[in-house]
Amino acid sequence: MRNKDIQKQEAIINATVDLVNEIGFVSSSVSKIAKKANVSPATLYIYYENKEDLLVSTYIEMKKKMSKALLKDFDDSRPFRDIFLSFWKNAFEFVKENRSLYQYSEQFSNSPYTELVDHKELEKHFEPLFRVLQNGIDQKVIKNVSFEILSTFIFYPVKILSNPKMCRGMELDEEIIETSFTLAWDAIKL
Amino acid sequence: MRNKDIQKQEAIINATVDLVNEIGFVSSSVSKIAKKANVSPATLYIYYENKEDLLVSTYIEMKKKMSKALLKDFDDSRPFRDIFLSFWKNAFEFVKENRSLYQYSEQFSNSPYTELVDHKELEKHFEPLFRVLQNGIDQKVIKNVSFEILSTFIFYPVKILSNPKMCRGMELDEEIIETSFTLAWDAIKL
Repeated sequence: MRNKDIQKQEAIINATVDLVNEIGFVSSSVSKIAKKANVSPATLYIYYENKEDLLVSTYIEMKKKMSKALLKDFDDSRPFRDIFLSFWKNAFEFVKENRSLYQYSEQFSNSPYTELVDHKELEKHFEPLFRVLQNGIDQKVIKNVSFEILSTFIFYPVKILSNPKMCRGMELDEEIIETSFTLAWDAIKL
Repeated sequence: MRNKDIQKQEAIINATVDLVNEIGFVSSSVSKIAKKANVSPATLYIYYENKEDLLVSTYIEMKKKMSKALLKDFDDSRPFRDIFLSFWKNAFEFVKENRSLYQYSEQFSNSPYTELVDHKELEKHFEPLFRVLQNGIDQKVIKNVSFEILSTFIFYPVKILSNPKMCRGMELDEEIIETSFTLAWDAIKL
């Protein structure tokens, strides 16, 4: 893809995120998004079939970006605890740095559009995380329970603790991030 | 309050939950809710000042109902682990039995209306839970970390595991509920 195309697509994705966060999914039309991105609706339709395609693609882009951020400095030769602590910190960092993307994604996951996502395809981007969990189970370091249950304790708490509505007045500093990791690790370790 | 009033208010609350779950907060007007509840808008305005008041009151009613359900068979003379296992099971039971109320509450928590709630007042209904946590900390059974962090591991996982979108195809049976409790307890215990 040419540079100019990439720039246009980025502008469209950013406009989608901003507009949906402002006025919601229902009121966000393709023409309003195109206007905000400074492109014509015709240009937008070169890249995206329709509103649904645009909303879903924006979500998938966000997830890809997130998986890249989570896997920063990934090194599966390190002890399991260190690998997960690294994920944990990366995840908090990502949410902090990408509040609006994250807000979009939260809304999206609670919307009917989420049914249009190929979740199996999406999970591939997080595959190294699941592989480390499986290795941990095989080596009897991590409890032998389903990935859903493990994820509930090792990935989802980041989401909850990062929600400013949840932690009224709690400053998410390094200490809280490390303390809460202790609880997450105690939950999943054997 | 007279019986007839209670029945009318219940009808209004139920209509609010159903309509919001169907068509969302923005499109749910007082007149549509009144129609669904089979009362006149004038009657609705006897009990609720306006749409905001109705939406917030519905949320608070749901939270009160939930706190009652969570505290079923509450007995703080039992060991901490048993008390929390009882909460845990009650919470899964509540979500299972009150899907639509729960769906409403999830949407509400992610909406701007949540700012109109007196959270301090609401937390009073869950006070016995927080008292047990504090006793557990004082008696060095539970980790001495903030209630926000403890809640993330002992209350929120129920929410995540109960979400049918999260656990695609996973049947929430007794075994999963007990297994996941093991992880929650390991997280918070000292």
